[in-house]
This record gives sequence, structure tokens and C-alpha cells, in this order.
Amino acid sequence: MESTAYRTHGCGELRPQHVGQRIKVVGWVRRVRDLGHFVFVDLRDRSGILQLYAPVQSPCYAELKALGREWVIQAEGHLRLRESPNPALPTGQVELKVEKLVVLNRSQVPPFLIEDETDGQEELRLRYRYLDLRRPIMQRRLELRAEVLHVVRSYLRSRGFLEIETPMLIRSTPEGARDFVVPSRLRPGTFYALPQSPQLLKQLLMIAGYDRYFQIARCFRDEDYRGDRQAEFTQIDCELSFVTQEEIFAIFAGLVREVYAQVLGIEIGEIPRLSYAEVMQRYGSDKPDLRYSHAWEEVTDWAQGQGVPFWAGRKVFWLWVPQGKASRKQIDRWQTIAKEQGALSLATVQKERDSISSSLSKFFSLETLSLEGEGLGLWVGLDKDKPAYAALGAVRNAVLRDLNLPPEKPWAFLWVKDFPLFEEDAEGRLQAAHHPFVLPHPEDIDKIEEAPLAVRAQAYDLVINGYEILSGSLRCHTPELQMRIFRALGFSEEAAQAKFGFLLEALSYGAPPHGGCAFGLDRWVMLLSGGQSLRDVMAFPKTTSGADLMLQAPAPLDPAQKAEVLRWISADESSAPSTFVE
Amino acid sequence: MESTAYRTHGCGELRPQHVGQRIKVVGWVRRVRDLGHFVFVDLRDRSGILQLYAPVQSPCYAELKALGREWVIQAEGHLRLRESPNPALPTGQVELKVEKLVVLNRSQVPPFLIEDETDGQEELRLRYRYLDLRRPIMQRRLELRAEVLHVVRSYLRSRGFLEIETPMLIRSTPEGARDFVVPSRLRPGTFYALPQSPQLLKQLLMIAGYDRYFQIARCFRDEDYRGDRQAEFTQIDCELSFVTQEEIFAIFAGLVREVYAQVLGIEIGEIPRLSYAEVMQRYGSDKPDLRYSHAWEEVTDWAQGQGVPFWAGRKVFWLWVPQGKASRKQIDRWQTIAKEQGALSLATVQKERDSISSSLSKFFSLETLSLEGEGLGLWVGLDKDKPAYAALGAVRNAVLRDLNLPPEKPWAFLWVKDFPLFEEDAEGRLQAAHHPFVLPHPEDIDKIEEAPLAVRAQAYDLVINGYEILSGSLRCHTPELQMRIFRALGFSEEAAQAKFGFLLEALSYGAPPHGGCAFGLDRWVMLLSGGQSLRDVMAFPKTTSGADLMLQAPAPLDPAQKAEVLRWISADESSAPSTFVE
Repeated sequence: MESTAYRTHGCGELRPQHVGQRIKVVGWVRRVRDLGHFVFVDLRDRSGILQLYAPVQSPCYAELKALGREWVIQAEGHLRLRESPNPALPTGQVELKVEKLVVLNRSQVPPFLIEDETDGQEELRLRYRYLDLRRPIMQRRLELRAEVLHVVRSYLRSRGFLEIETPMLIRSTPEGARDFVVPSRLRPGTFYALPQSPQLLKQLLMIAGYDRYFQIARCFRDEDYRGDRQAEFTQIDCELSFVTQEEIFAIFAGLVREVYAQVLGIEIGEIPRLSYAEVMQRYGSDKPDLRYSHAWEEVTDWAQGQGVPFWAGRKVFWLWVPQGKASRKQIDRWQTIAKEQGALSLATVQKERDSISSSLSKFFSLETLSLEGEGLGLWVGLDKDKPAYAALGAVRNAVLRDLNLPPEKPWAFLWVKDFPLFEEDAEGRLQAAHHPFVLPHPEDIDKIEEAPLAVRAQAYDLVINGYEILSGSLRCHTPELQMRIFRALGFSEEAAQAKFGFLLEALSYGAPPHGGCAFGLDRWVMLLSGGQSLRDVMAFPKTTSGADLMLQAPAPLDPAQKAEVLRWISADESSAPSTFVE
Repeated sequence: MESTAYRTHGCGELRPQHVGQRIKVVGWVRRVRDLGHFVFVDLRDRSGILQLYAPVQSPCYAELKALGREWVIQAEGHLRLRESPNPALPTGQVELKVEKLVVLNRSQVPPFLIEDETDGQEELRLRYRYLDLRRPIMQRRLELRAEVLHVVRSYLRSRGFLEIETPMLIRSTPEGARDFVVPSRLRPGTFYALPQSPQLLKQLLMIAGYDRYFQIARCFRDEDYRGDRQAEFTQIDCELSFVTQEEIFAIFAGLVREVYAQVLGIEIGEIPRLSYAEVMQRYGSDKPDLRYSHAWEEVTDWAQGQGVPFWAGRKVFWLWVPQGKASRKQIDRWQTIAKEQGALSLATVQKERDSISSSLSKFFSLETLSLEGEGLGLWVGLDKDKPAYAALGAVRNAVLRDLNLPPEKPWAFLWVKDFPLFEEDAEGRLQAAHHPFVLPHPEDIDKIEEAPLAVRAQAYDLVINGYEILSGSLRCHTPELQMRIFRALGFSEEAAQAKFGFLLEALSYGAPPHGGCAFGLDRWVMLLSGGQSLRDVMAFPKTTSGADLMLQAPAPLDPAQKAEVLRWISADESSAPSTFVE
């Protein structure tokens, strides 16, 4: 830390080399220990913790003793070597003999322990977030977050990306989730929407010739916050012109490699690639956790000869878990999960040192399986025509979790590519699997009208440890192809013009071939920092019900303001001024 | 630009050193010139412009000739030296002989010229912003903006600032302007507000021990957009703990120095400082344009002896404009302006080579003025008790503008400090001059209750060329002092708790001394880039009536969505769930 009028050093910076110097530090009182002959105070600032002390004969003794937890003080004195060093602390070899003390501010007794291991429940910590954020582990996480962004920016800049800010008050566009809307006062009856992502704006920047763009972009989704989601979140948002999918893989693998090297000191090597079809058949998931090598293998041909009645005419998949050992209860649970996810059967075989057992032993000899070593095997049967691969993923996850298997490596990266362009919703209607601007695979363009579900997209995800960390695609860059896709999605010419007219028009003025991606920054930083939740890596997160417990937001407006907002909203937009001239 | 599958070089990068190489470029057709024996095409990408050509005997001749403006093409061939170089173009010594041409996309004829000097009116250019942004001057401005942010981030990082993101969906707090509000769906009847600035959040980060924070923060104000304002704008937002005002001046002068050195190659030297009282008396403005050295001088003592009836008992100020020469019409205009701004009189003296004249010559001998050289002098009389210094500023600005005086230097920087803590609104009620969290000058704390208008604040602005580019202050860090200020502003204990309870509580848990500032990034980049308007330095700006002409936002919602929003808003918030538990 810089030497200033208030301090000469940060608390955490002092080392034996500073012994004998006159030192001034500021910080928060972590604790006060009165040993009779001496009083010791742990002082904490962002740089770390330093032990202060005063002997009983010092005038500062009483002053130090009177300090309370979390008081803000300035202490001045000489640094000396400790008689009993504390190896757990970077400053553990030294301590400051306080010769002058100034109390800069007092503190009430905090409602929970300000330590990495705290006694505060999360609701209380969110309510007093400014105290929670004092915990060193939270400071390290936010420092790591800033460091990731620094490495990301440096890398993208070095690859010719230009950082450009796009607006937050935009127009509502259908991208899956519900928009947050903002009533307009100057044009009553109309609304802005907060962006779910800068998707169309970054495409417009490519059409505008910016070639390579990035932005650390705040995005908003008004979802029902099941699980670990936040109403606002941050994307590393990127777009490139004149680019192939291969080049995108290389550039962003390079970015990931740089972040792991610079932030964690880890060399991650090459990132493997699998198609969507492959990951679904091997792992039953488009975001498999490849820290575990366990993969499903299709054994349909073999299975048809085994005389198992519930395998007849079905696809059968096999998973071998070396060393695995399951209880009856676990197997029951997995069968329930498999059925819920659409599998038609689940059977197991258990091989131990001296025995091999399976409910299928009545159909064929288990010895013919030629299993190597001990372990657990699972067979899952799927419908031949509509194989519910998701069941394979659900069972794999449940097995790995329930058997408490340790990951085979700390980090596993995977590109998943060739996603489908379309999917069917619950009512059997065609919808965009990613978003409606994705470029189809060139070999599949002819199938858009005839066999849309067979059209592969030039879309890809980067999966890290089972989390989708990046998602992206090449985009349609001609109005004709874009309109074919809108039509396949059920838009009439008029509806497409009403919703996406400005995009179709922009594509008709010389749009370059382009594509891009976005990283989910919060989730990635959570993984990188070892956090358990997105809330661990955001300064002021919201609860799953969208509340900021510290600010007490959202909040009622005062009645006059609320009446005014209601007036704007209720207005008939056709009565609004029709011109926007400056 | 990186060599990729699509291109080997950027158009603007090619130089004589590349002559003879096989080159592949992509870009937009700027124009096609058919000279009969040859066809020439100017091709444009973000890096610049390159001349392509094909001789009439080449198979590419007809293809190049058929290209339209703004078509996107890929051209491959050998580079050669031009016979007649174009010194105006960085690539003007070379041209590409096209041997292979691929049309990547066609374009409609653009509605205006895509050149620095365009024929498009602003409304049309905003409607087709993606075409407007193709103009090289716009690309240079957005590149400069990105460069400024890069230098700012590097500098702040080197000074120990941590970049931290704060939320956009916060609680409405009174900070002068009107908030944009966002209805909450999960808690009907309540609202989020978009931040006017992260002011309280950054103070909470200081209370949380983050020591030095910055953020490039999007801010929102729902104002009536008189003149050059934007509904959303970007701040370089900074806060520091354990800091003196002097240190803040040094750190941020350093940042400004770094930006000018790195971005413009200009050494700006020391930044002078004046108090608010001084700038008001010398320049009649708290943001004087010091590219002009013209300053008012108080001559009240002298004036009292001159027998001018309308000077009796008044404060009189004198401004000398060397070489200035005013018409009767101009002087009439300035008199109107002076009176509108509360001045009581304006008189002038004109000195030319052979003559000196003034309406005041009947009262005293003009020779006694001892004016050096030719020029124009102005006297403005102000009320002794309530001197309307703003009139001095308005007259100074009008004189400098009307006389078309050239600036004496391209850049002028000024710190203005010791702003008043309070001011009176139109109804004579006390209000915060900056915001209610500013720390009073230590010498003036006793006057908060007795003479609030005499209390100076530890608040400061950085003025560049007459624009307020930075504004900041030290902040109250004890709940007692903060509450005294709230009380002076007319808040009861209950009202203060209701509005700022979380801040008062946070201050009671060990808040460090802290302060900070925010730069208005858009305006600063406008100055740095020579732009005329904030819209020149934002990718997708809004009109003064808050409209995005390209996206056509704000827009009506579809009826179902609108009905839903109305339902949320109309709900009685007391019926909302009372708990926010995860």
C-alpha cells in the first residue's frame, strides 16, 4: 500500500526487513488480548493482519485495552521481531510496539464473527453485507474477481478487441426469460427493457465494422430464482467479424488458458471437443463434469442377444464405475431418477473380490461380461426412437455424487459443439435452441424447412467442471437466411418485421460474417475462487427472491411518485409525441 | 490485425514493405471508380482504407465494377507500389491487384455518405446508427474512448484501487434528479431504482474495508434532457479510505496527467487550485474556462470615489479584454444577460489607437484608468449583500464568445475546492449543495446549526476547459456528524432513519475516514476526442427526449405484459411476502 499521511504501510505488508523502522498503520481491531504484562491487538486492513502490543508500563497499554472489536484505529510505533512467531500469518514474525494511538472511529459490537469461519447465518450476513465483506475470504474473492477481469481485458486487448459500452435502457426483445421493464416518463405508455444480454447490439457493432468487440456487460433476467441465480449478472461479452468457428475456439481457449496461468498458476493444456450428439450419448448432458472420466457406452447390439425382456427393441447403455459399490437403497434411488428422466430400465451388476451379482444373472452368465477388477456396472435402457439421453446424465451425476467419488483431476474443460439449431417446447412447437440469430451448419441449411430438428447450429459451449461457462455461436449475416429461420420459428413476415425489423434492415446494409460468445463471469469466478455460491463472488448480491437485504430493495415508492409512475404506465402510447427530433 | 482464414492483413496496415506479397483483405466497399483501362475500389475496415484495382483484361475487372457501396468483400492478390501515391492515406503508396474476389455480403445503397464529412442529418444517422458508426471518425472516437479507459484502469490499478461491480437494481434514494424505477414482480407494489451513482454503495465498500475502489459505472438520471445530457451515462467512480484531500488531488491529477500523456501525448503540468469563493469572484462561475485568462477584479474601493450614481453602495467588478472591440448591439446583449443574472449595472469603456470612449466619461476622466494598449473594459455592479457572481460568469462567457476570441491555450485545468456544504433552494429551504454525505471543513463544523450557509465542504471539482469533469468530496464517517447534517437539512430522526437508516447503521460499525470522486467519462472523452456532443462518443446514444431511434425504444409492451406490469405496480405492498429468506 502507498505510504500516505495516515499510514506508512499496510498491516499485512510488514516483514522482518522492516524491524526497527518507525511504522504507522491503520485498520480495524480484530481482537484484543490482555495478558496482564502485555496487551495484544490484532489489526486488520485489506492487506492483512498485524499484531500490535504495549507493555503494561506503556501509556498506550490502557488505550489498547479499551479498544473494542472493529474499532478503526491508527497506531504508530517501532516494529520488532516476535518472541514467539506465528507461522500461520504472513506477518507472523513481527509485531508493532504501539507508541501512539489514535481512535479514528468506534464500532458497535458486530452481530457476527468477522472471520473466514463465521458464526453468522447468510441472511444476517447479507443484511450487514459491509461487515460480511470485511472477512478476509470475501476480500480475497473480490480481489480474485478483479484480477480475472484484468487478465481478460489484457488478453482481449492484445488480440485486437475493442471495449465498447452498449446501453442498458433498450427495447424489450424476446430472448427466453422475462425482461425487467422501466416505464418511460417522457413517452408515457412506453417502456424500456434492461438487457438480458447485448446480443443484438454487439451484432450491430459488427455490422458497423468494429471487427472485434468486447464488454464486461451487466445483464438482467426477471426469472423465478430457483437455485443459484441472480437477477443481475455479469457477462464477458465478445463478438468478432470475419471469423471461423475454429478461430473462435482458439482465441477463447487462449483466454481461458491465460486466466488459469495468470490467476491460479495452472497450465491447462489443450481443451478437448465433442459434438452435442457425442456428449449426450456418452454423458447424457451437454455440460458433463469431465473431472470424472466415467462415460456411457452403447451396448445395444450386445444387449439384443442376452434375452433380457425389457431390453428388446431398446437402446441399451452401459456405465462401468471402477471400485464402485452401491447399496440397494442407492440403486432404488437411481432407478427412480432414471424413470423420472424418461429411461425405460435401469439394472446393475456388482463385482467384488470374490463375487459378482446382478438381477440379470437369470438371463445370461455374468462371467461373459469380462469385467476387470472390482466395481459397479449400470445398464440403462432407452426408447429407440426418442432416446431420453438426459436420463443417462441424471444417473451418472447421481452415481458420482452418491458414491462420493473423488474427482480424478481438479479442472476439466470441454468444448461442446454442433448443438441443434431448433428444439421443441412442451407443446411441440419449434423454438430456437439458443437464440434465433444462430447460423446453421452449412451442410444442414437445406433442412431448415423440411427437417428443422435435424439442423445443426454453428453453436458451442465451453464447459468447466460441469458448468456451462461460455456459450456462443456464429450468426446469420444475410437477411434472407435470417428470415428463413424466423419463418421456421413461426413468425410471419409482418411479425418478424415488427419484432426484428431493425435487425433485418441492418443485415441488408453489408453485414460481415460474424460470431461470438459470452462467458458467465460470476459462475466462472465462483469456480476459480472456490466459492460455493454466486453470492460469494458479488459485492452486493440479491437473495433468490430478488431482494437486497442491506438496502432493503425493492421498496415501496412514496405515494406521489407511485401515482406518477401509474399515470405514465396507464397512458395510451398512441397519445405520446410521435417525433423524437432533437 | 491478426492473420486469419479470412485475411492476412488489415486494409490500413499495408505499406511498401508488403509489396510483392500475396495479400488477402476483407472489408466494405467505399467506392468504385471505373477509369476504362482500370477499375479502382477503395476498401475499408477498422484499420483503414486500401486501394484495390484490376486492369480491364483481368477476369476480376467486371466483378469489381459490379460491386456496390458498402458491399462486404474478400479480395486476394499481390500488393504493388502505386504509380501515383496518395499522401493523404497511410496506405497511399500501395495498391492491391485483385486476382480473386469473393462477395461476402451485398448492401442496399446507404441513406447517407459513410465519410467523416457526411451528408446525413443527425436524426437519420441515429436511425441507422450502425452505418453512422462505420464512419472512420466515429471509429477513432470509440477507439479513443477505449484507450482512455485502458489508461485509467492501468493507473488506478497501479495505485492500489480494486475494481468492484455494484448492483444496478438498487433502492430509490434522493440525490437530486428523478430515478428511473423498475417494478418488482416477485414483490408486487415495490420498485427497484437504477442508480444515479454508486455513491452509497462505494461508501459501504469503504466501511467494508476495501480501502481503494473504482468502477466504470453506468448511471441513470430521468431528467428533462435540456441540452447535452443523456439518460444513461458513464462515470469513473472512485473511493478511498484513510485519505486526505491533498492526497486525492495528487492521485487524480496523476490520473489526468497519465491520460493526456498516453492518449494525446501532452504533458499538462501542475493543476492550479482555487477556492469556490475565489472562482466566483474572479470568473463568476464554479467551472470557468481558463483557456482564457480574462478575470474579474473587484474595484469597489476605487469605484466609490468616481461619482457614478449606480455604483454607490455596490460591489463593482472590472474585466479588461485586450484587443477587444464591441458593437453597441453586443453591449446591449451583455447588459440584458447581466440583468437577467442579477447584476445591477453593466458599463463599458472602449480604447482604440486614438481614442477612448465610455458612457461613464461624464463622471470621471477616462485617462485616469491608465489602460495599456487597445481593448475593451467592462464594469459590472453587484448588490453588496447578495452579490450575484453568476452574472460575472455569464457576461464573461458572452464576451468571450461574442468577440470570437481564440483560446490562449488548448487545455486548461483547475481544481475548485471549498465548495459550500449547503445552499438554499428557490423557496429558501436548506439543501445539500453536493449531496448530504459530504464532510464539512473541520473549522466550520460548529456552524452547521448556527450558520449553515457559511459552512465550507471538503468538496472539490476538477474543471477542464470550462467543463466539470470530476466532482468529489470527503464524506462523513461518524453517525453523529451525519445525523447533524441530516437534521440541518430538515430530516427528523425518524425520516432520516427511514431513508438512510442502513447508512447510519453502517457508520456505527467502524467506518474509516474516506472520500472519493467521479469523473464524467462521456464528457471528458468528448473533450479529448474533439467531439461536439456526448452522442459523438457513445456507441448507441439516446436523443434529448430519451429515445433510441435505431431500436425504437422506449416502446409499448404487448397488452398482456403491460397488464401484468400494471398488476404488480398496483398491488398493495403490505400484502407482499414479508420475508426474504433464501
